[in-house]
Amino acid sequence: MGDQPSSTPNSLYYDIVIVGAGPVGLMLSTCLARLGYKIKHIDNRAEPTPTGRADGIQPRSLDLLRNMGLKSAIMENKPARVYEVAFWDPDGSNGVVRTGTWASCPAFIDARYPFTTLLHQGLIERVFISDLEKNGVEIQRPWKITGFKSDEKENPEYPVEVSFEHTDGTSRETVRAKYLFGGEGARSFVREQLGIGITHKDPIAHVWGVMDGVVKTNFPDIRMKCTIHSAHGSIMVIPREKNMVRLYIQIASSTDPDWSPRKTATAEEVQASAKRILQPYSIEWETLEWYSVYPIGQGISDRYTLDHRVFLGGDACHTHSPKAGQGMNTAFLDAQNLAWKIHAVEAGFAKRELLRTYEPERKEVAENLLSFDNKYAKLFSQRLPAATEVQAASKHTNGHLEDNEFIKTFKEAHPAQSRLIHPKGAKLRTGRLMANADVTRVVDANIVHLEQEIPWNGSFRIYIFAGKPSVTSRALKDFAFQLGGKRSLFFTICTIFAAARNEIEISRDLPGLLSRYRDLVYADDRWDRRVPDAAAAAHAKMGVDEEKGGVVVVRPDGYVGIVTSLVEGTGTIDALNAYFDAFCVKKTADSRAQL
Amino acid sequence: MGDQPSSTPNSLYYDIVIVGAGPVGLMLSTCLARLGYKIKHIDNRAEPTPTGRADGIQPRSLDLLRNMGLKSAIMENKPARVYEVAFWDPDGSNGVVRTGTWASCPAFIDARYPFTTLLHQGLIERVFISDLEKNGVEIQRPWKITGFKSDEKENPEYPVEVSFEHTDGTSRETVRAKYLFGGEGARSFVREQLGIGITHKDPIAHVWGVMDGVVKTNFPDIRMKCTIHSAHGSIMVIPREKNMVRLYIQIASSTDPDWSPRKTATAEEVQASAKRILQPYSIEWETLEWYSVYPIGQGISDRYTLDHRVFLGGDACHTHSPKAGQGMNTAFLDAQNLAWKIHAVEAGFAKRELLRTYEPERKEVAENLLSFDNKYAKLFSQRLPAATEVQAASKHTNGHLEDNEFIKTFKEAHPAQSRLIHPKGAKLRTGRLMANADVTRVVDANIVHLEQEIPWNGSFRIYIFAGKPSVTSRALKDFAFQLGGKRSLFFTICTIFAAARNEIEISRDLPGLLSRYRDLVYADDRWDRRVPDAAAAAHAKMGVDEEKGGVVVVRPDGYVGIVTSLVEGTGTIDALNAYFDAFCVKKTADSRAQL
Repeated sequence: MGDQPSSTPNSLYYDIVIVGAGPVGLMLSTCLARLGYKIKHIDNRAEPTPTGRADGIQPRSLDLLRNMGLKSAIMENKPARVYEVAFWDPDGSNGVVRTGTWASCPAFIDARYPFTTLLHQGLIERVFISDLEKNGVEIQRPWKITGFKSDEKENPEYPVEVSFEHTDGTSRETVRAKYLFGGEGARSFVREQLGIGITHKDPIAHVWGVMDGVVKTNFPDIRMKCTIHSAHGSIMVIPREKNMVRLYIQIASSTDPDWSPRKTATAEEVQASAKRILQPYSIEWETLEWYSVYPIGQGISDRYTLDHRVFLGGDACHTHSPKAGQGMNTAFLDAQNLAWKIHAVEAGFAKRELLRTYEPERKEVAENLLSFDNKYAKLFSQRLPAATEVQAASKHTNGHLEDNEFIKTFKEAHPAQSRLIHPKGAKLRTGRLMANADVTRVVDANIVHLEQEIPWNGSFRIYIFAGKPSVTSRALKDFAFQLGGKRSLFFTICTIFAAARNEIEISRDLPGLLSRYRDLVYADDRWDRRVPDAAAAAHAKMGVDEEKGGVVVVRPDGYVGIVTSLVEGTGTIDALNAYFDAFCVKKTADSRAQL
Repeated sequence: MGDQPSSTPNSLYYDIVIVGAGPVGLMLSTCLARLGYKIKHIDNRAEPTPTGRADGIQPRSLDLLRNMGLKSAIMENKPARVYEVAFWDPDGSNGVVRTGTWASCPAFIDARYPFTTLLHQGLIERVFISDLEKNGVEIQRPWKITGFKSDEKENPEYPVEVSFEHTDGTSRETVRAKYLFGGEGARSFVREQLGIGITHKDPIAHVWGVMDGVVKTNFPDIRMKCTIHSAHGSIMVIPREKNMVRLYIQIASSTDPDWSPRKTATAEEVQASAKRILQPYSIEWETLEWYSVYPIGQGISDRYTLDHRVFLGGDACHTHSPKAGQGMNTAFLDAQNLAWKIHAVEAGFAKRELLRTYEPERKEVAENLLSFDNKYAKLFSQRLPAATEVQAASKHTNGHLEDNEFIKTFKEAHPAQSRLIHPKGAKLRTGRLMANADVTRVVDANIVHLEQEIPWNGSFRIYIFAGKPSVTSRALKDFAFQLGGKRSLFFTICTIFAAARNEIEISRDLPGLLSRYRDLVYADDRWDRRVPDAAAAAHAKMGVDEEKGGVVVVRPDGYVGIVTSLVEGTGTIDALNAYFDAFCVKKTADSRAQL
């Protein structure tokens, strides 16, 4: 990676130019830097976000950050954790009264960390920046992009030319790159230059005021996330790190008779309004860290890419109200999706066409996000959202917005057909996350979280649920033989037996290639409350046969790619080949996979 | 604290002089520095332990380090974790075969972290040193103590005079202090100067070789703790951080016909011996980080103190084989025990006599430790310890050595007698740790670990298990009234209701003083596998009545002090007063506790 024509100066050729060092740009940069790509990353701000802005990390994103080894650095900032949302409504006289509470991450979602993590964006950015520094990438700031063009015919290897300048206009630079990524937020220069329009899903626009600070109050739920409606208006309360509180107040809506997107309010006006709304409780500000007013319209970028060389992601592609707390999380996943696909293509594993799946996959997620946000925002601004209403609004998204993401797009693009694929009983679904499960690692008897055992490394993870060793012995041998003897950087393989740890002998029970991954062999011998009667809880949670086993392939971004049975002969490898052949460079239909 | 006669120069007067910056000295220093005491801390080594030495942190110590906010810094070093011990014995021919495994922390112990954490002592020392720096304490090194005297008549406030010099002899210093602590290890200068003898519990002495390094081997349990016996001798294997392994080999025993405590072996000889013992498996060293040979005799210091001004702790008081992995853990608890007692006395809360309990409490723990070590070491050196034998040897200590520690000493010293104390059903016992329990914090609905909710702060923790609010309303009001309106630095109070979080209204359900600790109010509404049928799992785990509640007092070092019923009238406060009056300065028998 990072190769360039030897006759040209090194410093002018990059694998990718990333514009914008917010969540989406930093995640992309961090993933690609770890894989050794040469990155030019610029941002037009002199330093990371000092205060305010996005601040909610959802459970799924926390798993992902943990898988990248970044969770503990984030948790060191002692963020607030939201487990429940409280609903307050008019009490009939002049005040408000709590009418219900609802779990932030309901119990039917089996999350390791069933809460939203809240801390300000700058602290999150710094965690990424410090990781980037370890890989030799420094954000060049304050610099802004001034122009770019992309022409594969002119330069097939480095088709993109990008120009920048220091924001004070004193320096200029032009480089060539294989890719350009615009992660500059709602007012994306890259998107505007490409002339890509925004489709507004909901014609209603809003003006929001948002305020961070430390308050003194006797309002009992000040450390909870609250939706408060009163005769005097509505507020959303979000707890923050360092004992701070964030208040969102809707200042104007395009449904108001006197609507103007320029309508504003001073911090004092918002504070006075908050005092009226919170009656009979009192509230005073000890410190005011940040206050901002901004108009928000819901919209999705018509395209996410120009030519699969210039890409957009994050807020540059989707804008919406801040209240669902999903913006940063969607941005992270945009970036992860693009990162592994660029890697797979550039490293010669996948066909270049794989990059065409970025836009449809991520656009569908954004559509779901906006549809959720739309319902949520309407409830909020139209007053009186009972807990049950919110539950209904978020029902088909589970608050995670993962439904259907991959199902239509990737499945439709996939010719893989086999009676082994998605066998009866399989609980995992393509495009969803693998279930979490505790297992015992065989080599050291450590109890570990299976879904975290393979750290993010850009590879596909192949989980062989090997059932009962006595039953699957032949199938495992056949599978291992067909996998061949080669290790591949694009696959990490682990094996989970439905047996007690002390019954497993790696040298005896694991054939060839598999026994070389000896640190990734597990005993499915931990009890799990979610499947209390299962003999092998991890098998049961995946919906894999506890005796005969099965194989689960998880994409580099954590989504399930395919689930197959584990059978004797070539059936299992044939099913995997059918999946991979759809986008891989090498044809593997001879039942000897290039894994 | 840190006051001294105003006519004398500040720099010559200290609250305490601590000699030795190993685990015991650093723990004492860290505790007292956090409470604001003025500390002179010296060590005769130029820098922290570079390699080798003690490296096992037991589950109970990990809880304690977590409670001090030091766990994550330790875990950042990615230590090895031992969940199981494997036993290997002669296979009848010339090799070894696994004959069993045993949990390192058996399931009947309800530990949050049921494993031993292994990393080298220097990394642990650095975590403490970095915490000390935050509190302005720097270890003065390489300096050694050259003399001391203690005379309360001559100087009642600063009775101890201590002299030091730089190890190169170039500088000298003499200071006065309220206390002197010798934590210099087995060859303690302070202990020798005091002429305190060592009682050897077991006349058998041993010479040990210990070796740290990275190995290449096909021995399947190389990442487990193993006890290996063969026709060629015995080895203990301990996994370490950074893929290292520690091997302990017994080189000589005083039971050998040719016994000499000076017997030694080179690293090469030990490696050759290990190769023979591990047959039929192979082992080669890729790196050798540390190798040392040392004679070990089991012994306990006859006294732990001269005059309750000069104290000893850690290895200066108890030496034993390294194999039980308890040395550092006992050292930590020696230090914590002394720290809170010095604080209680110096801050005017407790009578000076409280310091007399340090020696008997800690000596009994050391006796238990040696008795455990003795049995364990005998099994090890006499060959063929079946898993069942080890189980039997450790039965009455649970591998934690906490049994009976406080029971005899503190209980005997305690005149507290009341039918409310240790009510029927109470599962907590004086001198044991409080059970762990998940609860929901009322103010923010966070699910938390109750036993960790009050960070180490030198105070007694009063857990009011408040049962059902409707049942205990009167009892709580009476108790709060008798507590009086004052907060005390010596008590931190939290309240746990046997009710769902959303049924608890702090302003309504908590009287006076208690409602001021609003961040420390909890709902006992989490299901626990250990008490699956309990409606209020935390109450049930403590053995406290789920309706009527009860009060648990936990000492600053984490041991349960007293458990009482929660009753209407003055009974509960009378029981607490009886407990505290035994060692507190202020008489509180008027049923208005000075809490």
